Amino acid sequence: MNPLETKEFRRQGHMVIDLLADYFENIENYPVRSQVKPGYLLESLPDSAPMQPESFETILKDVHRDIIPGLTHWQSPNFFAYFAASGSTASFVGDMLMNGFNVVGFNWESSPAATELEIVVMEWLLKLLQLPKSFSFTSDSGGGVLHGTTCEAFVCTLLAAKEKILDQIGRDNAEKLVVYCSDQTHFSFQKSVKIVGINPKNIRHVLTSKSTNFQLTPHSLDEMIKRDVEVGLVPMYLCATVGTTSTTAVDPLGPLCEVASAYNMWVHVDAAYAGSACICPEFRHFLDGVEGASSFSFNAHKWLLTNLSCCCLWVKDKFALTKPLATNPEYVKNKATDSGHVVDYKDWQISLTRRFQALKLWMVLRSYGVTGLREVIRKHVKMAKDFEELVTLDKRFEVIVPRYFSLVCFRVCPYVIGKHYDSELEANEFNKKLLESVNAMGCVYMTHSVVGGVYFIRFAVGATLTEDRHVKKAWELVKDQATSMLAGYANAQVLCHLRLSIPVQE
Amino acid sequence: MNPLETKEFRRQGHMVIDLLADYFENIENYPVRSQVKPGYLLESLPDSAPMQPESFETILKDVHRDIIPGLTHWQSPNFFAYFAASGSTASFVGDMLMNGFNVVGFNWESSPAATELEIVVMEWLLKLLQLPKSFSFTSDSGGGVLHGTTCEAFVCTLLAAKEKILDQIGRDNAEKLVVYCSDQTHFSFQKSVKIVGINPKNIRHVLTSKSTNFQLTPHSLDEMIKRDVEVGLVPMYLCATVGTTSTTAVDPLGPLCEVASAYNMWVHVDAAYAGSACICPEFRHFLDGVEGASSFSFNAHKWLLTNLSCCCLWVKDKFALTKPLATNPEYVKNKATDSGHVVDYKDWQISLTRRFQALKLWMVLRSYGVTGLREVIRKHVKMAKDFEELVTLDKRFEVIVPRYFSLVCFRVCPYVIGKHYDSELEANEFNKKLLESVNAMGCVYMTHSVVGGVYFIRFAVGATLTEDRHVKKAWELVKDQATSMLAGYANAQVLCHLRLSIPVQE
Repeated sequence: MNPLETKEFRRQGHMVIDLLADYFENIENYPVRSQVKPGYLLESLPDSAPMQPESFETILKDVHRDIIPGLTHWQSPNFFAYFAASGSTASFVGDMLMNGFNVVGFNWESSPAATELEIVVMEWLLKLLQLPKSFSFTSDSGGGVLHGTTCEAFVCTLLAAKEKILDQIGRDNAEKLVVYCSDQTHFSFQKSVKIVGINPKNIRHVLTSKSTNFQLTPHSLDEMIKRDVEVGLVPMYLCATVGTTSTTAVDPLGPLCEVASAYNMWVHVDAAYAGSACICPEFRHFLDGVEGASSFSFNAHKWLLTNLSCCCLWVKDKFALTKPLATNPEYVKNKATDSGHVVDYKDWQISLTRRFQALKLWMVLRSYGVTGLREVIRKHVKMAKDFEELVTLDKRFEVIVPRYFSLVCFRVCPYVIGKHYDSELEANEFNKKLLESVNAMGCVYMTHSVVGGVYFIRFAVGATLTEDRHVKKAWELVKDQATSMLAGYANAQVLCHLRLSIPVQE
Repeated sequence: MNPLETKEFRRQGHMVIDLLADYFENIENYPVRSQVKPGYLLESLPDSAPMQPESFETILKDVHRDIIPGLTHWQSPNFFAYFAASGSTASFVGDMLMNGFNVVGFNWESSPAATELEIVVMEWLLKLLQLPKSFSFTSDSGGGVLHGTTCEAFVCTLLAAKEKILDQIGRDNAEKLVVYCSDQTHFSFQKSVKIVGINPKNIRHVLTSKSTNFQLTPHSLDEMIKRDVEVGLVPMYLCATVGTTSTTAVDPLGPLCEVASAYNMWVHVDAAYAGSACICPEFRHFLDGVEGASSFSFNAHKWLLTNLSCCCLWVKDKFALTKPLATNPEYVKNKATDSGHVVDYKDWQISLTRRFQALKLWMVLRSYGVTGLREVIRKHVKMAKDFEELVTLDKRFEVIVPRYFSLVCFRVCPYVIGKHYDSELEANEFNKKLLESVNAMGCVYMTHSVVGGVYFIRFAVGATLTEDRHVKKAWELVKDQATSMLAGYANAQVLCHLRLSIPVQE
């Protein structure tokens, strides 16, 4: 048996390319959110692995029968949930090359191209985002690295900040360290803080409010820090966000960095979703002030046509990052590392093992070019704007926060819901039911959030295949369903305009 | 522009399948270890991303010209360095499906198939490895999860153990927690300990020695723990290894777990490399005693025909794992989670984002079957055994530790090196030069380690394409080069038996 026999590799590889191309062509025929019940697969698959090999045809049949019905179709043009994961052909084939070469580029020596291409694409992206030179490898101590996720970027920068400050104030003061974020910061930040062993009592969630569009305000931050300093605590790290998860709020980086700087704190800017938009000159101003930050990250796997997973992180002080993360045991020692002239990315991340992720990003940047990528961002923003206008034109609905990028946060207003729904709480309940009934049809998928006590529907444009018609149809569905529910026909189902037949393939 | 336009997707996808199949067919023509110099790519690529899209043909040409020469060819049959990353067609096409569907399976709701298939394959593997039922989802509190790397498994289990014990003894005692490993434990353990904020002074590396084949001995561990307990410290976590990185030493799990159990410690078994071998009944005894452990992990991406990256982790107490890692913010709340009847894997790992990794493992297990996977393991072990015999037959060489799996640790003996090399230090120097000169030819790639002060060459069989002839040829190269060096021709180059021409493709 040769599991890399090339005739079979070609055969299966070509079959899967066609399966996936067919999948993209038929993707609108699937319910966007999977309609299976918990346990559907656990009940149908065998208890143990087969003793004998099975044919590829059998397995592919099972992919159609067992797997695809259990997928929530993130690549569907009718996917408006969470934030999209915008795949692309260039990224897909980049991943194929990465997986085919299957090199483990933990240091320069173990596959020089993996390290050097990563440096190249990180410098390309730095320029594209107009990040300050202090984050660049061309500066004294800056540099960029590809992580898998923002959570990894949080963990590594928190660790860097922590070790840096403990070197100054002594390890015995570890329990005094305080980290700051807002009540809108992504929850993985809180998780990361726990992981690196910061006292959970010392995480400060600065409250935000509708009056400032759920921004973290420098004044509230400063107040909170002052109180901590007064009781002998040590401010260590601020996480500011450009494009929060619930509403895409943008924290004012400049003023926040100014506050943090007075206390010598590490500032990380998390632009997981909105960072990609900032490759367009008209959105770049949202990053104003980033030059005052210590580190910056965004997820190319959200909105830069890059398949999962790919988080781009830059730091001003790479030595702070690598000091706690670097290790050099005998079995990876080599001349290139000893020379000091190469980057060993294992020292920039949690794990030793790393894949050749730069390949897909390089292929995306070249295949679509800066103009192509900007076009995609602008198209998505335009569609979100159109949706926002449709919502605004219908007086029964309201957009609950300003739309900055491609997310529209909206709901049916409390005042139109009728006598049984005369409070905010009842409006929340109504909108929750509205969303559930819209999603249950399978034609579209949106998700929700709650800010300032208000439950709302999040309409996030970002799937690669989404066109104007999908956005318009999504609005029609929401509107009709709301009309139906408002008319007292809460259980009525609006007929789905889409055929929901799942093609059976052999 | 449609970056998922299917005609172009098909075209590029088919082209890359053929590129990779050709690559595998020609892989022996490339120098195994890349021969580029630091900076080779940084100097040749443009400074910034292109404004306009470039053609796929242009990009592929650059893959051949710029990328492939900078790869160290981990899939080459002549790759005997580190531990191999054994790719396979089944895993590759599984990755294609994963990347094509590009779903973000952070919880059950976000793609039910991703979660349920992961549970299925983790149960299949549990049975295949004959892991205790207490690690299974069918027990009260056990379960398995796919991480990317062992380091992630370390971080998550360390955090679980830490929070569990702090709940019992109070958070104020965090600085008293001590973790134990041996001086042979993988360095990513030490890194993980730092990440989770254990006091670096409290990492104990129990010394091992040649007399016990670099095993961590229960007696030494117990002595060390006792000393810590006497001064008021709290033993928290032991990392035992089945198949250490330098020599594949196997720590005696049963007796170690017994020691740890007396102190109520968490025991993690790291079988990153050797775990895969334990699917064969004749190797399973190396896991004897694992029933006493709290968690167990191995890397399917090392030796189970699974492409990067894929670490399989089981825990006995999933609640200990999810307690510090679980979060449930509004924007991911859903009925399935509320029902309590589903697994949300985001709570079992560092990050929120997760890919549909189970797909490739499922395809590997089905495509090759248990018999096929065992055949691969046995073939590799047999080849290592053959190499070991060749070394043993040549009296100038010695195998420095017993071979258990597919790694042979050997060197030229000090006594044959001659008058200028009459000490161990000189032998180290000689073997280092020998390895460097063998690797410089490009025909094979091996790496080294040092244990007990002895520098040796690691010959690790595990690449999917390796056949008997590659192993024999590798030995001939080493032997001839040693002969040449021993004859005083230290600078002589043995003629490489392979043609080292890199095919230029259009």
